[in-house]
Formats: sequence, structure tokens, C-alpha cells
Amino acid sequence: MTGKESIEIAQQRAMDRTDQEIITKTIEEGVETAWDRFALQQPQCGFGQLGVCCNNCAMGPCRIDPFGGKTSRGVCGADVDTIVARNLLDDLCVGAAAHSDHGREVVEVLLETAEGKAQGYQITDVEKLTVLAKEYGIKTDGRDPKDVAKDLAIGILEEFGTVKNRLQLSERAPEPTREIWKKAGVMPRSIDREIVEAMHRIHMGVDADYVNILLHAMRTSLSDGWGGSMAATECSDILFGTPTPITSITNLATLSKDKVNIVLHGHNPLLSQIIVNTAEDAELKRLAEEKGAKGINLVGMCCTGNELLMRSGIPIAGSFLDQELAIATGAVEAMIVDYQCIFPSVPATASCYHTKVITTSSKAKIIGASYMEFNPENAVDTAKSIIKLAIENFPNRNPDRVRIPERPMKLMAGFSEETIRKALGGSYKALIDAIVAGTIKGCVGIVGCNNPRIKQDYGHITLAKELIKRNILVVETGCSAIACGKAGLLVPEAASLAGEGLASVCKLLGIPPVLHMGSCVDCSRILVLAANIAKELGVGIGDLPIGGAAPEWYSQKAVSIGTYFVSSGVYTVLGIPPKIFGSSNVLNLLADGLKGITNSAFAVEPDPVKAADLLEAEINRKRKALNI
Amino acid sequence: MTGKESIEIAQQRAMDRTDQEIITKTIEEGVETAWDRFALQQPQCGFGQLGVCCNNCAMGPCRIDPFGGKTSRGVCGADVDTIVARNLLDDLCVGAAAHSDHGREVVEVLLETAEGKAQGYQITDVEKLTVLAKEYGIKTDGRDPKDVAKDLAIGILEEFGTVKNRLQLSERAPEPTREIWKKAGVMPRSIDREIVEAMHRIHMGVDADYVNILLHAMRTSLSDGWGGSMAATECSDILFGTPTPITSITNLATLSKDKVNIVLHGHNPLLSQIIVNTAEDAELKRLAEEKGAKGINLVGMCCTGNELLMRSGIPIAGSFLDQELAIATGAVEAMIVDYQCIFPSVPATASCYHTKVITTSSKAKIIGASYMEFNPENAVDTAKSIIKLAIENFPNRNPDRVRIPERPMKLMAGFSEETIRKALGGSYKALIDAIVAGTIKGCVGIVGCNNPRIKQDYGHITLAKELIKRNILVVETGCSAIACGKAGLLVPEAASLAGEGLASVCKLLGIPPVLHMGSCVDCSRILVLAANIAKELGVGIGDLPIGGAAPEWYSQKAVSIGTYFVSSGVYTVLGIPPKIFGSSNVLNLLADGLKGITNSAFAVEPDPVKAADLLEAEINRKRKALNI
Repeated sequence: MTGKESIEIAQQRAMDRTDQEIITKTIEEGVETAWDRFALQQPQCGFGQLGVCCNNCAMGPCRIDPFGGKTSRGVCGADVDTIVARNLLDDLCVGAAAHSDHGREVVEVLLETAEGKAQGYQITDVEKLTVLAKEYGIKTDGRDPKDVAKDLAIGILEEFGTVKNRLQLSERAPEPTREIWKKAGVMPRSIDREIVEAMHRIHMGVDADYVNILLHAMRTSLSDGWGGSMAATECSDILFGTPTPITSITNLATLSKDKVNIVLHGHNPLLSQIIVNTAEDAELKRLAEEKGAKGINLVGMCCTGNELLMRSGIPIAGSFLDQELAIATGAVEAMIVDYQCIFPSVPATASCYHTKVITTSSKAKIIGASYMEFNPENAVDTAKSIIKLAIENFPNRNPDRVRIPERPMKLMAGFSEETIRKALGGSYKALIDAIVAGTIKGCVGIVGCNNPRIKQDYGHITLAKELIKRNILVVETGCSAIACGKAGLLVPEAASLAGEGLASVCKLLGIPPVLHMGSCVDCSRILVLAANIAKELGVGIGDLPIGGAAPEWYSQKAVSIGTYFVSSGVYTVLGIPPKIFGSSNVLNLLADGLKGITNSAFAVEPDPVKAADLLEAEINRKRKALNI
Repeated sequence: MTGKESIEIAQQRAMDRTDQEIITKTIEEGVETAWDRFALQQPQCGFGQLGVCCNNCAMGPCRIDPFGGKTSRGVCGADVDTIVARNLLDDLCVGAAAHSDHGREVVEVLLETAEGKAQGYQITDVEKLTVLAKEYGIKTDGRDPKDVAKDLAIGILEEFGTVKNRLQLSERAPEPTREIWKKAGVMPRSIDREIVEAMHRIHMGVDADYVNILLHAMRTSLSDGWGGSMAATECSDILFGTPTPITSITNLATLSKDKVNIVLHGHNPLLSQIIVNTAEDAELKRLAEEKGAKGINLVGMCCTGNELLMRSGIPIAGSFLDQELAIATGAVEAMIVDYQCIFPSVPATASCYHTKVITTSSKAKIIGASYMEFNPENAVDTAKSIIKLAIENFPNRNPDRVRIPERPMKLMAGFSEETIRKALGGSYKALIDAIVAGTIKGCVGIVGCNNPRIKQDYGHITLAKELIKRNILVVETGCSAIACGKAGLLVPEAASLAGEGLASVCKLLGIPPVLHMGSCVDCSRILVLAANIAKELGVGIGDLPIGGAAPEWYSQKAVSIGTYFVSSGVYTVLGIPPKIFGSSNVLNLLADGLKGITNSAFAVEPDPVKAADLLEAEINRKRKALNI
């Protein structure tokens, strides 16, 4: 393949200049990436894509003939609606479990911190601790924050169980929204219980009514968004601080030519934040210099990166599809991973260079990686050992194989719900006034991943640009926020790309037209934002002129996020079709029937400009209903 | 098709004479059954059968080429070992969730009974309540059983959560067995937590080490066997009584020509036991007579049937694959289902006759069935309404379409662990002596389902006959017990088919050589039996000359049962290959590598005679190690 050809391929694969540069390098060096594996997997199974394959029990695998042939039922008698709905629920459960199990770990560390058992952790945000404790009915006056934190942690841990049967944080939702949940019978009872009951329903011969299955999917997703994910966000804030506006840099140029590069990848800040705190250690800096480096350069990736960016301004090298590219620069001494969205082949990629991949979670080992178990009891010691290992690997870097792109992009992050509210003067009145006046038409949350089915970041960037042009404020999390960060949309100067009204508000407040609200569990921040605006207006979330979008999603977590958005009343447009097109009943329910329940629904639209049209139309519909 | 041809097909499909008779009727009448759908689904997808297809995320579906072609990894980079192990864990979770969520419901009803909120329930077995309460450290002396029951129920419900982090009932396992769990890091912490963590691990980019995935599968299964399932068994016993030996009848001839036939199908005794208690109501009997019937004939099916048989001696019409056949007799007024193993097409089958299918669980609705929601608060009222509905349907029975086989088979059931122990004089000494002397060589638990891949009941019956002939005592649950019941092996007279030693013991005690221990959650009774024998011997379960088998399994629950058997030390032979043959690493670990951890492993052997050889060899190996 000629150099020109590989550049052309790289340009088809990704939007970002630095990504393109390194994709070209992978092609030239013959290093396999997800795009290559995606190409090798073509054509993908059509039954699977339609959701009409069931491989649950040992009478199967069974497939429903999408062309109406003889196999209209599986061996057990399940029809296509049951099979499609059940597969969707299974996927959603995996996503909800990922978020909620992550949340559980954070709450457990909060408990250990309160008990003085966790090394290097502290109660950083006493204000947030107090707010949460009050919500949970825990006394705070005159008490040691650690005692309060202990009661709070136990209070939240009880919500993973079956005795309490109530999720406190779900009461943050406005009353009209909670009324909808009650009426539909989808009020979440417990974080774990809904997932386990969902798995029960998936078993052969349990739930065989696609409406009933999808209602429980809604309930399960709510236990994630208003339960596990929200607990993860809130307790991470208590431990590490609630984010406030902060500037940093992004893209693969954040890697350093002369420092020890450590990439922190995954989703959970528990270890990575301690690594950030520990990297300042003088002994480690000295060791780095001894090894010929000019210091230690920590960069984030994916949602662990978002967590560190939001609270500590750590540069973020890239998103989901950048994990192999970072290694392929040849300049990464160590990639430290916790869990979720880590390619199982990362050690194979690393073996083409000197990079060490270090797994740290007992629930996420990867064959070929080095395993250094993280426990809160010795978090600082572990962090030091990991950093040392990275430093000691610096001399193994082969300068002939290194290519680091130039010019990182500036960005601004740190827009927690509290920060947005404070910036507006402590209430949403100013924002609501701007929306009523039409200066800002509405608000859309763009979230979710990358997916090799679509040119990396194209969906995120194009949709965000289209929306801000139309005076619709954009809030983002996850890979979406990183995509727009790399594209230069997360700086106040990007207001020039916004419509006149939105631009004026951004200039007034000195904020970008696209606000980075955090990692993917932090979609819970978007829920709280929407809830608080709705409460100030005295309406349900489903009445607000807002929308959601996941233009490039791939992950099971996105299935749960999308579903809790819609279940909470947020109309949501997906850029990648979910595997439900084999059942017109399931499709119609999700794209239309739900409107009668939550005043919102899903739409599927791969073209981001058309997605913007859909979202704008929905916002106008809701504006009209509100008489604004 | 000629009558002769349809009889031949029926003889290929099932062992039992009454089943064959009705299968012939379905063929003649053109009524579709699982066997027909199984035939229509051929050929089934080879990728799915090997377990090498992954349809978890929206980058897929992906398939690994089993012939070593270019697709050695999915788009994410997962290799075949990760994909196969993850699929297995997903299946296992569904099974564990089914059992444990069933257990949760029983414990919740125990709580409501204690609180006086449940209609028609009572604390029936105070002795068992006391035993359990003591295990949980709950005071019992001089206390009202209801107060004790309340504390116990809450104590067990807490084990579904995350605060307690310990399963009390798992401490019933002998110390050497628990040591193995500790060493392997698979001690279960909570019933729901392990399932949710498993779902987290399945998410893209979490666990990518097949050994680690399978170890967690073991832990999850242990939280089922020694947690959710055991809680289901024990609390059902407290509510409805611990089974004692009881005689009854089985096969499709249990249906009545002149009474209102009600089939109770599913897995949970909560409603069905109340139906049994309520059917004695004089008003209902009068109504039945008014409608021209000579009374009400309740028959059980599948594991709901086993629950009712074990405690109340209700006749059992058949097992999993008999659900359509019962309807096809044309003589069933109502099939009442709770959940699990209910064909979603049962309403379609029923629509060929006058039968009404009534769903009763909010988590298991079926389109086409009538839904009459069961709640413990009005269980008796619901039971009455359901029975009335069945009675009122009696005049719709079309005599021209009715064919009820003749001659039901006698059986004996009710062999709870307590009953076996009491029969032996309060301890296992006599049994152990018989094993040491070689009069009985060992013991095998045959469990699991039917599966149209194998002639119905052939695996169960053939294996049981082979084993008892070799002086190996057989204990059974689920469809396996029903199969042997229909075949006449669950009567004391069947001792004549046993080897001399076993026959002598059976004759002495007046018991069959194959003991019916209950429903599939009651596999927990087998665990307790093994644990108590091991404790008397002072060894681990893995040291005992015992084995397990699931000759005809289909269900995800069987995956969990098999795994907790093996994890507890019981060598287990599967008659149907699990979907793991795409990964030689996973296969080798489960069939061999586990021996180094638990002193037991899985084997796959479709031929039941050869399966008996494997089990006998294993028993001899363990006998030798014990020097007996």
C-alpha cells in the first residue's frame, strides 16, 4: 500500500488530524486496530444484527426467519418480539450492571475512607456530603464528616439490596416524572434487584410479552441512571471534589517526547486519581530523571480520562478508539487500565512496541497484561509501584518507532450540575428566561461512544455544530465530549460557531457552547440538571424542550443510558441502529408507543444533520406545548 | 402421514407410553410441538453451538473462525477464549438469577406471613424455622415463631445486598470445601452482587481472561446453590412443610375424564400450594358439579409439580416437554403458570383446544394468555378466581377431541435431606457404613431437564438404571425425577432392578433405589446431603464417592446447577454439550483444569451407559483415595 493510500484510509476512519496521523502509522507498520478487525468481520451476521437470533438455552441456537418463512418461533416457542426484546434487555442489563457495579465500588471506598481503612483518600467535598446526607435523612449537624460519610455509604449500599426497596436519589426526579414511573409500574426498587430480575425474565419460559419485558428494561435503566450511576458520580465527587471549570488540552499530541508517558484508561477514578496525586512525589520525579526522562506525563483516555480531566485538568489523549493509537505512537511507557471499554487485544498491540499494559481490577484481567491488583487499603503503594514500573520502562522506548503528533487542542471542562447552577447565580431562572425568550431554544445531551461503523467523531462533531448553530445548548459526556474537545468545540471561542442567541449567552458567561459534564456515569449529572430545571418550572422532565443523542454508540452502557433518558422523558436519537429491527412491534413501541407513556421516544438517524432536524423539531414541539 | 408413521415418530421422540400416545395425537391433529419446531430450526448455527459468536455490543455481531481463519478476534479484540467464557457466564447468570429471584420471592412471602400480611400462609414447619434461625444467630427461645420468622426473612433478604457480604447458608459446607473456595477466591459474598458483577465483567472491555471469568462463574453459581436456591428450598419448607415420604401417581393418565383438570406448571409453590389448599373449598366443588364435572383434579407439571408432589402428594402429569402434550389431550380446562420453562407458545397450543392458559406473575406474562396477578396479600382470593375460571371452562371441553391415556404410574417422593437423615436414624453413620462396606458404592445426583435433542427421558432413565444396577444410590430432582417416576423407578419395588447391595438397603428401609428430592431449586437439598455426609466423615465434598449428571439439560439454570455441583466438589457429567467447544482452553479448564482446584470437573458424554462408566470410575477413584 502506498503512503497516499494509507493516508486516504486514515482520513476515512477518523476526523481528528492527530488520529489520522497515527492511523497512517499503524497501517504502515502493519499494526492491527479495531478498524482492521471490523473490516475482517464483514459481512456480519444479519440475524444477529436484526436481533432475531436467540442463543440462550441448549435447545438453541434458534433464528426467526425475517422473511416470514417457517421458523417463526424458536424451539421453545418464543416469537420474534420476545426474542428481540429479551436480547435488548440482556444488553441493557450488562450496561446497567457495569455502571452500578462501578458505583458500588466507589461507595465501598467511601465507606472505607470513612472508616480510615483507605490509603490516600479523604472526604474532599464536605458540602456535597452534607447535601446527600440530608437527602438520606442522616443527621449532619456537629458531626464528624467521616461519621456522616459512613452512614451515607451504608445507606447507599443498602439500595443495592432487597430490604429497603427504594432508591433515595430517584426522588430527585420531579414529581410529574415520578408519577409517570408509578403509573407505568417502573419505579426502581433496588440497584441490583432490577438487574437480577431482568436476568430471571430472560430465562427460557419466563417473560414472553415484549411490552412487559421492555417496561422492565425501563425500570432497570432507571435503577442505573437514578441509582448506580448517580451514586458513582456523587460519591466520586465527595471523595475527589465536585468539578468546577478547568482548562486543559487534548488529542494524541498530549503525549510527551521527553517525559515518561502514562496513559490512564478505563472508567473508574478510584486508582487513577490516586496515581495523579502520587505522581507529584519527588522520589518518582528523581527516578524519572535518572532514567533519562524530563518528568512524568500523565494523560487520560476514555472515561477514566474524563474523570481526571474534570477534577484535575489532566490532559486527555483521546477516546475509545484512540486506545490503540496512543500505543502506536511508540511513546507510551505504560497504559494503566481499570475496566470497561478496554480492548482485550491491547496487550497484543502493546507487544508491537515497548508499552506495558497494566490491569488493576480483579474483575478485569487481560491475558498478556501485567496484573497489579488495586485495593483501597494500599492504593498509594500500588500507585507508586505502577508509576515506577512505567518509569523503568522509559529506556526501552525506541526513538525510531516514535511519532507524536504536534499541536494539542485546548479545551474547557468541569461543568458539573452544581457548577452550571452556580454560574447562573444559584438557580436556573436565567437559563429558563433565555429559553422562554428563545435566545436559547433548548438543550441536548450528546453522549456515548465511538464505533468503527462510523468515521470516528463525525457524528458527535457534526451534530454538536448543527445544534449550537440552531441556538441549542449542548451538554456532553464520555467519548462525545472528547470528540468535541478534539474538534475545538469545548472552548469559549467556539461560541462563534453558535447561533446569535446562544453565542451571546456563552460570551456573557465565558463558557463554551458545548459543555463537558464528565464521564459516562456522569450522564447522571444531565439527569439532575434536567430534573432541577423541570422542578423550577413545575413540570416533568418530559415537558422540557430538551433532547438526547448517541450518534456513535457501541456499548451496552449506552443502551442503558439511552433507555433511562427516554424513561425520564428525554427524546433520544441514536446514530447506530440497535439490534431490534427484526421486530416491528418492538421497534414501534420504542419509536412511538413510548410517547404515550413518557412523552418521549427513541429515534434512529445515522445522518447527524437529519438527527439535528429531529431534535430541533422535538424541542419545538415541547416549546409549543409549554406555550413558549 | 399414516397412523403407523406418526406412531413411529412418537416412539422416536419420547420413552413414555402416555407421552407417545399424545405425541401421535398432536401429529394427527397437526398441533405443533417443541419437537416440530426443533426440526424446523435445523440446521442450527454452528458458530452459536460452538459459543464463538458474540453479539454483545453494537460493533458486532462478531464470529471467530473455528477453522483458524483471519477472524481470530472480534472487533473489540476479544479472542475465542474470552468470547466462549463470557457467553457461558452470561447463560449461567440467567440461571442463577432465575433461582435466586425465585428464592427472593419466597423469602419476601415468609416476611409478609410473619407480618400477617399474606393471605392463606402460615409458619408450617416451626422446627425448620428454629434450625435456620439458630444458624442466623437469631434468638428463638420463648419467642413467637412469627417474630423469629420476621428476623430470619430480613436476615436472608440482607444477603441479596452488599452490606452483609456473607452468605450464612454457605457455612453449611464442610470446612475443607470452604477452604477450597477461599483459596480460589470464589467465596460468594451476596446473592445479587455476584450476578451483577458477572454482568459487569461481560461488558466489552472488562474481563478478558477466561480463567478469571470462569472463576467468577463458579462464585456466582455458589451464590445460587448455597444462597438463592437454598433460601428458596428452606423458606418454602418453613411455609409449607418439609417433605416426608409420600406416594402419588404420574404421567398423562393422571388427567381425569370426568373432573375439571387444572395443570399447575412452572417452578414456584407460592400460588400453586394455595390453589391446592383452596381446591378443597365446598363452594368450588359444588360449582364443579353444577358444571357437570365430578370434581376438581389438580395435577402438577415441571417443578411446580414437583413442589406440590413433594409436600402434598399431588399427581404430576409430566415434565418440561409434556406441557404441550397435556393440553393436546383436549382434557385440560386450565393451565396455571408461574414462571420458568413455560413455552411462550403455550397459548397458541391451547388455542387449538378449549384450554385456558393463565399467567400469574408480573415478571412472566405471555401474549395470548389470561393474566390474573398473584399477590400474597390476596393469594386465596386469586386462587379461588382461577379455579372458578377453570371450572367454568369445563362445559367447553369437546369430548370428540379428548384422549386421555390409561394407567398412571405409581411413585414415591418426599425425600428431603431431613427425611433421609431421619430414616437412617438421625445420622449418616448407617449410610457411611454401607458405603465403606461397599454395599453401596456411592451416590449420584441426576438432575436437569428434557431437551428435544435427545429422546425424552432416555438419558435419565438409562443412566439411573445403569447406576442402581452398579449399587450406586441415585437421588434426583426436576425433570429427571419425573422421568424416572414415569418409568417406574421411584417405587420401592424398583429395588429389584438394583444391584444386590443397594437392593438390600432399599428393601430394609422400604425406599426406592432412586430418591425424589424435589424441584430444581431443591438441588440445594443434594448439597446439604453431601455436606452433612462429608462433615460426618470429616472430609470435603470433593472427597466423597459421589457424582452428578444432567443427561438431558437445556436450561440456563442447569448451567448454574452443574457449576455449583462441580465448584462444591461433585464431578458432573453432561449429556448435552455446552456451547464451549469453540475454545479448547475453556474446554480443558472445565474438563480437567478444575480438578486441581475442586478435585472435580465436568465431563460431556451423550451416551448414558458411558456416562455411568465415567461416574463409576470417578466414584472408584474417590473410594480409593479414602482407602475404602
